[in-house]
Amino acid sequence: MTISETITADQAQVLLVAGQAHAAAMGVHVIVAVLDAGAHLKAFARMDGAVLGSIDVAIGKARTAALFGTSSAAVWDYCQPGAPAPNLQASNGGLMPFPGGVPLIDADGVLIGAIGVSGGAPSQDLAIAEAALATLNG
Amino acid sequence: MTISETITADQAQVLLVAGQAHAAAMGVHVIVAVLDAGAHLKAFARMDGAVLGSIDVAIGKARTAALFGTSSAAVWDYCQPGAPAPNLQASNGGLMPFPGGVPLIDADGVLIGAIGVSGGAPSQDLAIAEAALATLNG
Amino acid sequence: MTISETITADQAQVLLVAGQAHAAAMGVHVIVAVLDAGAHLKAFARMDGAVLGSIDVAIGKARTAALFGTSSAAVWDYCQPGAPAPNLQASNGGLMPFPGGVPLIDADGVLIGAIGVSGGAPSQDLAIAEAALATLNG
Amino acid sequence: MTISETITADQAQVLLVAGQAHAAAMGVHVIVAVLDAGAHLKAFARMDGAVLGSIDVAIGKARTAALFGTSSAAVWDYCQPGAPAPNLQASNGGLMPFPGGVPLIDADGVLIGAIGVSGGAPSQDLAIAEAALATLNG
Repeated sequence: MTISETITADQAQVLLVAGQAHAAAMGVHVIVAVLDAGAHLKAFARMDGAVLGSIDVAIGKARTAALFGTSSAAVWDYCQPGAPAPNLQASNGGLMPFPGGVPLIDADGVLIGAIGVSGGAPSQDLAIAEAALATLNG
Repeated sequence: MTISETITADQAQVLLVAGQAHAAAMGVHVIVAVLDAGAHLKAFARMDGAVLGSIDVAIGKARTAALFGTSSAAVWDYCQPGAPAPNLQASNGGLMPFPGGVPLIDADGVLIGAIGVSGGAPSQDLAIAEAALATLNG
Repeated sequence: MTISETITADQAQVLLVAGQAHAAAMGVHVIVAVLDAGAHLKAFARMDGAVLGSIDVAIGKARTAALFGTSSAAVWDYCQPGAPAPNLQASNGGLMPFPGGVPLIDADGVLIGAIGVSGGAPSQDLAIAEAALATLNG
Repeated sequence: MTISETITADQAQVLLVAGQAHAAAMGVHVIVAVLDAGAHLKAFARMDGAVLGSIDVAIGKARTAALFGTSSAAVWDYCQPGAPAPNLQASNGGLMPFPGGVPLIDADGVLIGAIGVSGGAPSQDLAIAEAALATLNG
């Protein structure tokens, strides 16, 4: 029996290394989580100095991005006050609809997983996730 | 012992087929969930191309409609800012109070279950649920 | 963006129809659940007359088979009294390690999901799952 | 504010690399999880080909070892039939009291975390965890 992988261990490792390097260059201590397209954990690294509360947040941002195939922040567009899907954030055991989760889409446009970063300000977390993604695609 | 059914498997199947056909005609990939009057899953179909996050949302919209005997969107009238039931959406493990869940009411006016649709825009999801319901009643 | 499907909606529908037909021929009222390789619900049908408690059991058997890539009953070989993995059944939110869950493996040997059946005796549930699988592969 | 680390990211990385290398040499596909002394996830890697069900099991074995400061298998000595702590395995959200989880104890005898491995036979998982630990201490 063969397990069908959407994201490989090698790809996940590139994301972890690049994300942590970018965070270190920014002087922030973060957690980087990589999930496959089924939202299952593939790889994870917690930098020294990161707060414990960010473990669940990093995984949650990645889960949000993987489950909806969009950035975690974009999910908030659907459920923020006045938007058409109030309380969507309570679905799926609780979404993390703010910056730092980015879907991983391959060259053929296929969703292969997601990366989630937490530990800095949300804008920093997003910059780190995008830098990791750029390294993977570069 | 006999199990008392509120909605039959045949009725649920009509709803799934009609809902998916309507979604296909609209070009959206959705999940259709049918619950009985006790809010227990009766039938479910996930179209190819639907995002995983919508599984829980489709079931949640149907749960919301079955539990309160009204459309999922109408529940928001009770709990939106300024309305008389703040945080009602946190009850029952988390409601999904936005368009796409519709109660199923038979010719005698009896609540027999609910249908929930997710995967498109909320307005599309509602149109699909209503089209399925019209087929069942037509 | 494209969602990568491990099992298609058409394949899941074949399983549901075949499983229910076999159950009807045996005179039992069952629930049939089909999950993808990531253990996410793809299709589900509850026959009239099935007990409500079997909803979670059918899904749980399929989850057990999808998560470990083996039959739900085979998981018990690892955790039964005297076996090398006591309490494995408490992992993953609670496994259902008894007959009725079967992994779906395609012609290339790739795990594409699982089917779970509950409502009859475990041996009947397994026979129904295997009959459905034979129809899919036949 | 400074976060007190029991195990460092560098140490965790050594464990992941050594554990995966040993597993590859044995021809098994495993998951390696490293927790700190507070039983919080520090680092995690899922090799290609590992079954999804082993994600929770690997973390569970490491949790069991970290929470009790002993090997996951040794916990079974307390709760197996006839032992003095029946149902201990149901504590802490469900322990995984079988081989593959090993506590990490530094040169001063201080518990600094735990490693958990799952994906092979329990005896293989334990051999991989011990090989990783030997590399860290070597």
